[in-house]
Amino acid sequence: MDYIITSKDNTRIKELRKLLKKKYRDKSGTFLIEGFHLLEEAVKSGAEIRQVFVEEGKENRVRNLSNWFSVRSEVLKSLSETESPQGVVAEVVKGQSKVKLGGKILILENVQDPGNVGTLIRTADAAGFDGVVCFGKTADIYSPKVLRATQGSNFHIPVEIDKEADFSKFTNLLVSTLSKDSIDYREVHLEEFALVVGNEGQGVSDAAVSAASQLIHIPIPGHAESLNVAVAAGILMFSL
Amino acid sequence: MDYIITSKDNTRIKELRKLLKKKYRDKSGTFLIEGFHLLEEAVKSGAEIRQVFVEEGKENRVRNLSNWFSVRSEVLKSLSETESPQGVVAEVVKGQSKVKLGGKILILENVQDPGNVGTLIRTADAAGFDGVVCFGKTADIYSPKVLRATQGSNFHIPVEIDKEADFSKFTNLLVSTLSKDSIDYREVHLEEFALVVGNEGQGVSDAAVSAASQLIHIPIPGHAESLNVAVAAGILMFSL
Repeated sequence: MDYIITSKDNTRIKELRKLLKKKYRDKSGTFLIEGFHLLEEAVKSGAEIRQVFVEEGKENRVRNLSNWFSVRSEVLKSLSETESPQGVVAEVVKGQSKVKLGGKILILENVQDPGNVGTLIRTADAAGFDGVVCFGKTADIYSPKVLRATQGSNFHIPVEIDKEADFSKFTNLLVSTLSKDSIDYREVHLEEFALVVGNEGQGVSDAAVSAASQLIHIPIPGHAESLNVAVAAGILMFSL
Repeated sequence: MDYIITSKDNTRIKELRKLLKKKYRDKSGTFLIEGFHLLEEAVKSGAEIRQVFVEEGKENRVRNLSNWFSVRSEVLKSLSETESPQGVVAEVVKGQSKVKLGGKILILENVQDPGNVGTLIRTADAAGFDGVVCFGKTADIYSPKVLRATQGSNFHIPVEIDKEADFSKFTNLLVSTLSKDSIDYREVHLEEFALVVGNEGQGVSDAAVSAASQLIHIPIPGHAESLNVAVAAGILMFSL
């Protein structure tokens, strides 16, 4: 490229900035990623990268990609919710992830905090799970906050969205609750299962409890009433 | 009280609003808490509550406390970083927590994200730990974001601040790393220890590694390179 985008008001940049909002991501079928680490993970995963915007001076880090543009750092900042957008922003096409049944699956039911959703995907990936399914009102996995927290794991593990929250197709449905009328998670020994964790305030739904093969809980020896959902799921995923 | 504070520019409110910043919390020796749940936990713990600001119409929930004021909801909102300040804000005097040696202690070394720090305190409380020590540049435990994530656990468990990061007083120092040149955490069986977790990006310091009685790691079967620090510490605290 022999030019640099110097203005936040450049038409291409203005269009791109809309992708910070879910409404436009839904319309375009694309999303933004930030930083060279995520960009590398996207490339490795074979994701379709539509265009790349790199801070001037860092062009040699993207020369092997097609359709990249040099931009001033202020322009890059306008595409980011963070203070430091780490040198690069790219537009990536959403994949059509389908989680294969069988194996170990994590189901997020109405998990609302983007940081929690991203951390849950990252932890499922670390624990060697086979997929994550997002039910109901779970935060949009393509939001910048979720993507930052996944640390690239969204490019390693299939993540499926199911607004209808259909429990019926899963076998060995383990549903995590706070109720002591359920079994201690350390008693569960299964090779294949789907683990359901629920909303930060309300926990899992009545539908999840009804559909459960087994309700499970983490005994809490201390004073806190509950654990953060990402911590609880981490303990469960690394133990089950 | 027979009056209502109706303006954000009320002198008392303006003074209080400064406590959203660390500089002023350090000066005053007090901090703000938000919501009836945290207020109840503060009262139960015997914390010194200096003044309480309650949304008009909800006065009967604080009548047994002294020094409370009715305020308009806009006034309350001006004291909060969140969209919905949940009806009440109170000014509380910082305690002089000292963690007793012995037992199980969590040491946070330069953990920077306030959400992580709060979640770590909550998890240590849930796991029945005896205290948390914040070393070096760990996020201020009196910031509104940390307090929201603790969910009141800061009123259950001693949390000590040690800017000097003095490792020498702890025995059985377990230091969490990513290095496979360390033992699998499942091989550790101790009744008393201090567990060190480090910064989100850099991990633990060289000083921590030198001081360690034992370096430990969580084997990661999947693709992610690491776990979120609060998730990792949760897995360790519920297993050790």
